[in-house]
Amino acid sequence: MVEVKKITKSILKDVIRKRPADSFKGTYGKIVLIGGSQNFGGAIIMASLAAVYSGAGLVTTVTDPSNQASLHDWLPEAMFVDWNKFDQAEPIIKAADVIVIGPGLGTDNHAFDMLTKVFEIVSKGQKLVIDGSALTLVAANNMKLPTDSLNILTPHQMEWQRVSGIKIADQSPENNQAVAKQLNAIVVVKSHRTQVYANDTIYENTGGTPAQATGGMGDTLAGMVGGFTAQFKDTPKAVLAAVYSHSAIADKLAEKQYVVMPHQISESLPKFMHKNQAE
Amino acid sequence: MVEVKKITKSILKDVIRKRPADSFKGTYGKIVLIGGSQNFGGAIIMASLAAVYSGAGLVTTVTDPSNQASLHDWLPEAMFVDWNKFDQAEPIIKAADVIVIGPGLGTDNHAFDMLTKVFEIVSKGQKLVIDGSALTLVAANNMKLPTDSLNILTPHQMEWQRVSGIKIADQSPENNQAVAKQLNAIVVVKSHRTQVYANDTIYENTGGTPAQATGGMGDTLAGMVGGFTAQFKDTPKAVLAAVYSHSAIADKLAEKQYVVMPHQISESLPKFMHKNQAE
Amino acid sequence: MVEVKKITKSILKDVIRKRPADSFKGTYGKIVLIGGSQNFGGAIIMASLAAVYSGAGLVTTVTDPSNQASLHDWLPEAMFVDWNKFDQAEPIIKAADVIVIGPGLGTDNHAFDMLTKVFEIVSKGQKLVIDGSALTLVAANNMKLPTDSLNILTPHQMEWQRVSGIKIADQSPENNQAVAKQLNAIVVVKSHRTQVYANDTIYENTGGTPAQATGGMGDTLAGMVGGFTAQFKDTPKAVLAAVYSHSAIADKLAEKQYVVMPHQISESLPKFMHKNQAE
Amino acid sequence: MVEVKKITKSILKDVIRKRPADSFKGTYGKIVLIGGSQNFGGAIIMASLAAVYSGAGLVTTVTDPSNQASLHDWLPEAMFVDWNKFDQAEPIIKAADVIVIGPGLGTDNHAFDMLTKVFEIVSKGQKLVIDGSALTLVAANNMKLPTDSLNILTPHQMEWQRVSGIKIADQSPENNQAVAKQLNAIVVVKSHRTQVYANDTIYENTGGTPAQATGGMGDTLAGMVGGFTAQFKDTPKAVLAAVYSHSAIADKLAEKQYVVMPHQISESLPKFMHKNQAE
Repeated sequence: MVEVKKITKSILKDVIRKRPADSFKGTYGKIVLIGGSQNFGGAIIMASLAAVYSGAGLVTTVTDPSNQASLHDWLPEAMFVDWNKFDQAEPIIKAADVIVIGPGLGTDNHAFDMLTKVFEIVSKGQKLVIDGSALTLVAANNMKLPTDSLNILTPHQMEWQRVSGIKIADQSPENNQAVAKQLNAIVVVKSHRTQVYANDTIYENTGGTPAQATGGMGDTLAGMVGGFTAQFKDTPKAVLAAVYSHSAIADKLAEKQYVVMPHQISESLPKFMHKNQAE
Repeated sequence: MVEVKKITKSILKDVIRKRPADSFKGTYGKIVLIGGSQNFGGAIIMASLAAVYSGAGLVTTVTDPSNQASLHDWLPEAMFVDWNKFDQAEPIIKAADVIVIGPGLGTDNHAFDMLTKVFEIVSKGQKLVIDGSALTLVAANNMKLPTDSLNILTPHQMEWQRVSGIKIADQSPENNQAVAKQLNAIVVVKSHRTQVYANDTIYENTGGTPAQATGGMGDTLAGMVGGFTAQFKDTPKAVLAAVYSHSAIADKLAEKQYVVMPHQISESLPKFMHKNQAE
Repeated sequence: MVEVKKITKSILKDVIRKRPADSFKGTYGKIVLIGGSQNFGGAIIMASLAAVYSGAGLVTTVTDPSNQASLHDWLPEAMFVDWNKFDQAEPIIKAADVIVIGPGLGTDNHAFDMLTKVFEIVSKGQKLVIDGSALTLVAANNMKLPTDSLNILTPHQMEWQRVSGIKIADQSPENNQAVAKQLNAIVVVKSHRTQVYANDTIYENTGGTPAQATGGMGDTLAGMVGGFTAQFKDTPKAVLAAVYSHSAIADKLAEKQYVVMPHQISESLPKFMHKNQAE
Repeated sequence: MVEVKKITKSILKDVIRKRPADSFKGTYGKIVLIGGSQNFGGAIIMASLAAVYSGAGLVTTVTDPSNQASLHDWLPEAMFVDWNKFDQAEPIIKAADVIVIGPGLGTDNHAFDMLTKVFEIVSKGQKLVIDGSALTLVAANNMKLPTDSLNILTPHQMEWQRVSGIKIADQSPENNQAVAKQLNAIVVVKSHRTQVYANDTIYENTGGTPAQATGGMGDTLAGMVGGFTAQFKDTPKAVLAAVYSHSAIADKLAEKQYVVMPHQISESLPKFMHKNQAE
């Protein structure tokens, strides 16, 4: 039987470095987030909020123009690109350290075209977080993941079923690991106890609360994975720290709340990360 | 003389269950809220806010496109559908556990058409909350309530007069109950001491404050009724708990405020429900 | 020499009545606020915020359509009317208890036309608060104030110079009172120590701080005058209470702030009014 | 070797005067901020927020119309001008005490045209803060700075390289001072320890934290420089006080936060300035 390592608080000090005094915003990475159709604009806003509040240096959000105002209402710190002007997005994507695609992306032709384009233009050294409807598109169209980028998939169990072909009931660590290896990707299978498949190791989160069972939680995690991997060099560990932080903040809030709003998790990040950074 | 039962704090622990550890957003219901013309966009925003903050799993708001940005400013957690694209709304309505129609809906032809359509497509097992201008439309057009859905009406006294034909002065428990039975609906008659007619029982709320006498309070209650009935199985009890919670939060805020803002009630829900959940 | 009465804290308990238990939103008045061009949208938002947070029952804001989203971001509680659809505004204006016109209205032809129209349709029993650019329009076009409504003018000293013809240096209580009587209006001359001319009496405010010297303070006061006169029967006293509350809240905030934001005053109203209501 | 003076806390009480009781919004200056393309709207919002919260009397923001709603969501206190209607902006610019141009301006033809126009119309007695992409445009087009206005440049090190021709590695106090003198401008070179070149003196800031290394920090500083120079007579000292306040607030927030959001600095200004004003 395969070993499953617990993700515990110790991952935080291991990953969240003390910021060097002589640093600037470029030090903390450039992220592009792509998603948010007219119907699902909130998803990309929540993901972007998580990226910025986790400390990413420069964040650009590529989304439907109907989301421009609400993006800036939450986040004047993010830059905006109209996703119908992909020529504007392309150089920014190419220059990014991390690309997050999927939150609220939808599954129409325009979404598929953008995803295809992104898969074509990502290159070595870039990290690509594939979330939400982007995973549905990958499964539905049998898309091959790009081979140059370091790919991180963040499906919930049903999305993982679609991508991996493993039914939820059969999603054992062994089965999941086999497909994750085949995909050559870091895979975060979100559930009550989220699991992370990274290289040859399987990890299981020790936090999480049913108060998180609300729309937008996954978008927030995708943005945090983006923000953490942009800043912290060891990508698998950065993913683990993002997963752990997401649930630890929720657990804390759930001590007093019946339901936790996803944006509250993002807004809690600056203090949480300060408290749990390396000494 | 008919018996009128008091709605007291005990309803809360009876209804608000402790969330099971192994649950996900689907566990807490899918709600669709329909309303918010260009003139009354705030109403559907406040109702949606109440639905999300009471813990509903997945919330979609069907409204005028001019309300998209402000919906997401308050609530990135909600999904948006342009109410002029009813073909997009239809499958979501059909798949919903609860439909709330009316807050800020208005009474023009487009509103009437949507209400008619919703009445046609709701089906067994669905709960339908009819509020605000939807009630005015029902009365003005002698619309028959759908027979498959479980219907919940949330009129204030003047709207109830329109729907029931009972003048405000004559709205005694007996008279109200008779019409509620005829309508085969749960009826929430909002006033200084809100009454609930459910099956053969009449309930009267014990909370409420004149600090609530401000525009938007009813929209907030409609959203809460949606959120509670989506999560908690016993529908009449869920309605009672929503009514009680709405006034209890307001009473608490009114200890320090001359007027209570409706959005404050919604934002207070996560802590209030945590404190008052079943052990 | 004319007597100038001080406006002191005692006005508050005299005006801010304890709300009767059996009341509803209609009890607390209907206000319409008209203003907010594309350039000055913030002004009507701040005025509307003040009206709602002071406890007015039902608030409608008639403004440029480009302000719809930001109005609802601040205030889902307010209803919206596109000021280019004056036919929609007209019945609401006619049914209002209080009309506030001027904050951010601008002085172009469209603004002049609306002001003219409002002057024509107001009627006995209505209160009309004339502020900001509406006063400039009145002065520039020698407009006669409506004779049916109870008119309340809220100029700063330069606007008062325009309306009254009295140069700022000559704005003595005697001179001001003479014109106020001629106009048959309540006049609030805003300055470091705001003065109120009501019937045959002259009042001077005892509060106020230079931390209030920032754009939007006057718009907020206009909205408060609207909110207070909609709720409290004695109009001159309601104006005095609004003026005093505005400065007393600012004075309190200025104990810790170099500058006070106008929206902070509005947001402080519910607690301030609770603390200072009649017993 | 040139002397470099430390910027310390003592600059605050030297600059931030106690507000005279008998003052009004005109006393605290008129600022116009120009910037914010469709892509970078957040930048001009953050700069405007800083200007208003530092106490400027009247603030107008000239920006892309797609930013109108989000500007007012953050700041109903600011007035708005569509930057495509430059004829509307021109008289406001001419009447301003301070013009801030650059945050999120972009570098396209429209941006270049506006910058050119502003350089032509500024006049004696006006202060002109040149920031962000405006500096890039100056460098790329070899634009001559206007000679009538008092110019303040706020480049980060790369922008300073573009404007001055001095490579980052060679940006010694001596080299920088030589170019600052040639330009006849106050120059703020932003870095880990920001330096200010004013007249014949070189200053270095003593505060600042890597928690500030995030997008929008520079925009916020530009807005503060605008707000401080609009209110406080001694322009070089006002710039020093803005630079010091910006980092001191960030240092305080960073005691508990891993990353500091730029808008938090602005929102902290009223209390910070109150605590540190002249007695």
